[in-house]
Amino acid sequence: MCGEEGYRRVELMSKGTLALLIHGGTDNWSPERWKARFDDVCRDRPVRLLADASLDPAEVAYAAVWKPKPGELAAFSKLRAIFNLGAGVDALMADRSLPNVPLVRVAVPDLTGRMTEYVVLHVLMHHRQEPYLRQSQREKRWAPKFQWAAGAVSVGIMGLGTLGADAAQVLQRIGFKVAGWSRSARQLEGIECFHGSAGLEAFLRRTDILVCLLPLTDQTRGILDRDVFTRLNRTSPLGAPVLINAGRGGLQNEADILACLDDGTLGSASLDVFTQEPLPPDSPFWSHPKVVLTPHNAADTDPDAISRYVADQIARFEAGGALENVVNFTRGY
Amino acid sequence: MCGEEGYRRVELMSKGTLALLIHGGTDNWSPERWKARFDDVCRDRPVRLLADASLDPAEVAYAAVWKPKPGELAAFSKLRAIFNLGAGVDALMADRSLPNVPLVRVAVPDLTGRMTEYVVLHVLMHHRQEPYLRQSQREKRWAPKFQWAAGAVSVGIMGLGTLGADAAQVLQRIGFKVAGWSRSARQLEGIECFHGSAGLEAFLRRTDILVCLLPLTDQTRGILDRDVFTRLNRTSPLGAPVLINAGRGGLQNEADILACLDDGTLGSASLDVFTQEPLPPDSPFWSHPKVVLTPHNAADTDPDAISRYVADQIARFEAGGALENVVNFTRGY
Repeated sequence: MCGEEGYRRVELMSKGTLALLIHGGTDNWSPERWKARFDDVCRDRPVRLLADASLDPAEVAYAAVWKPKPGELAAFSKLRAIFNLGAGVDALMADRSLPNVPLVRVAVPDLTGRMTEYVVLHVLMHHRQEPYLRQSQREKRWAPKFQWAAGAVSVGIMGLGTLGADAAQVLQRIGFKVAGWSRSARQLEGIECFHGSAGLEAFLRRTDILVCLLPLTDQTRGILDRDVFTRLNRTSPLGAPVLINAGRGGLQNEADILACLDDGTLGSASLDVFTQEPLPPDSPFWSHPKVVLTPHNAADTDPDAISRYVADQIARFEAGGALENVVNFTRGY
Repeated sequence: MCGEEGYRRVELMSKGTLALLIHGGTDNWSPERWKARFDDVCRDRPVRLLADASLDPAEVAYAAVWKPKPGELAAFSKLRAIFNLGAGVDALMADRSLPNVPLVRVAVPDLTGRMTEYVVLHVLMHHRQEPYLRQSQREKRWAPKFQWAAGAVSVGIMGLGTLGADAAQVLQRIGFKVAGWSRSARQLEGIECFHGSAGLEAFLRRTDILVCLLPLTDQTRGILDRDVFTRLNRTSPLGAPVLINAGRGGLQNEADILACLDDGTLGSASLDVFTQEPLPPDSPFWSHPKVVLTPHNAADTDPDAISRYVADQIARFEAGGALENVVNFTRGY
């Protein structure tokens, strides 16, 4: 990717060093494994790890980051661009000392497909009464319950970017009545689209299963609260509305979710994200009978696809092209 | 449906009585609720229940049946057609005293959609490691595991009728590599199709998740056995092949499934059907850690859609039209 093509275009811009600032913990976020992948796709570009004692910050042109510590990027005085290795950039944007260079979000088809898998799986699990069926199996009870068809259920998706639009299309193909809501007006073929605060009320009123894929911004922080939950439709065959949040933990008011599950305002919830991650062992979400919990793995980043994406962007950029998916700091994502 | 249209066409064929022979047990199969629905869509046609003591078998022109007892239909000497209220007709065809009149299968879009919901849900549950994630939640462990994308998994669907074709298309849209196998050659856009005994080996060799939607015939009885399981692909990210049977219990060799789950030939299984239903309380399937069990509810018959379908067919038939989806006794479905 950065190979021969990069050599030919070296006159346009020098081949900058790529530094990896990766904090994580799980296997998927081993800095050494990421370095091996980037070495593979940037064979003639220096790729350095933050932990490398001989790393001179002034030689670094690009930073590829995962959960960098606040202030950590300020040391790199010659940065040309920052690549975030996931879709959400809220934490990075909160770093006031972030160098004033383009911040690039990941947007690869692989990530979109994975999120659609998660959304379709969890919508179907609630729709098809999976928690009840697992309980029946544990109790050895052959007890089929009335099962409505997908056409009897309205799914509402908050956030109609690449991820929301793809999930909406697949859910509609399966037979659900699908609508979407976004900050600004969007049009999606065959999907009823609402937007802005003016459109929120009507969107919520027709929604049985609420799927949240919003970016976390000043406008969306804590948007999933009792006020929203009480306005969801209460006459679906599901009995009570369902919440699925695969966006960001900061979008949800967790005390409200727990209270609304307990008083029946919500019937159940699938949560992939939390305000504190890893979720503390004493969180009531773990053992709540109405919660289906996943450890922020709805749309894992595929290291191979992401490293190729970053390498391609850098090569194009050094050849005089524009960076894609650059974060708009005014909009907030 | 059988209303005004039926009146106008009464000269073509007399308006025959419809008798309901419904045995079941669960709410969905209450004969009285079915009668109310048929009364609603056949307002000027007599609709009678088998339990009605005054029912004269010789006045019955049509029978709509669910699990009729062997020999029960032989008493109806003036029958013109039998409508089975579900998709599978294997039990009916085994009744040697069945009157020699057209036997009609249900084929309504609603049934197809429900089966696709079930297949997509269960493929995604195994693909996305749901059993592991539920176990982690119970143990309060935040322990994301590597998650491959759908494109890394090959789903193979046995049975490419209306149901199999629809499920194949949705799974492909989600990103799975999908192939199908059927008795005789089929073509489905974008789906690799195998057929006949000559095509079975290659189909199984490339399959990670095997979905069975075959009809139960003399040729397919017991087809899901160790011989088939051992030929499935063993190099997928799932670790070991997965079986999903939503066809008929008679398709599966249950001793082989249990032995293959225990010795690792199969990694896990979703079973909606069993050779004996309801599944006996002492069946080892209930508590097997690798089995996801549902009580034959993959594609519930929707009483409203089915009763309209039967009423429409009768009205068209009496007006001189042909019956649709008539079972071919030679083919076996």
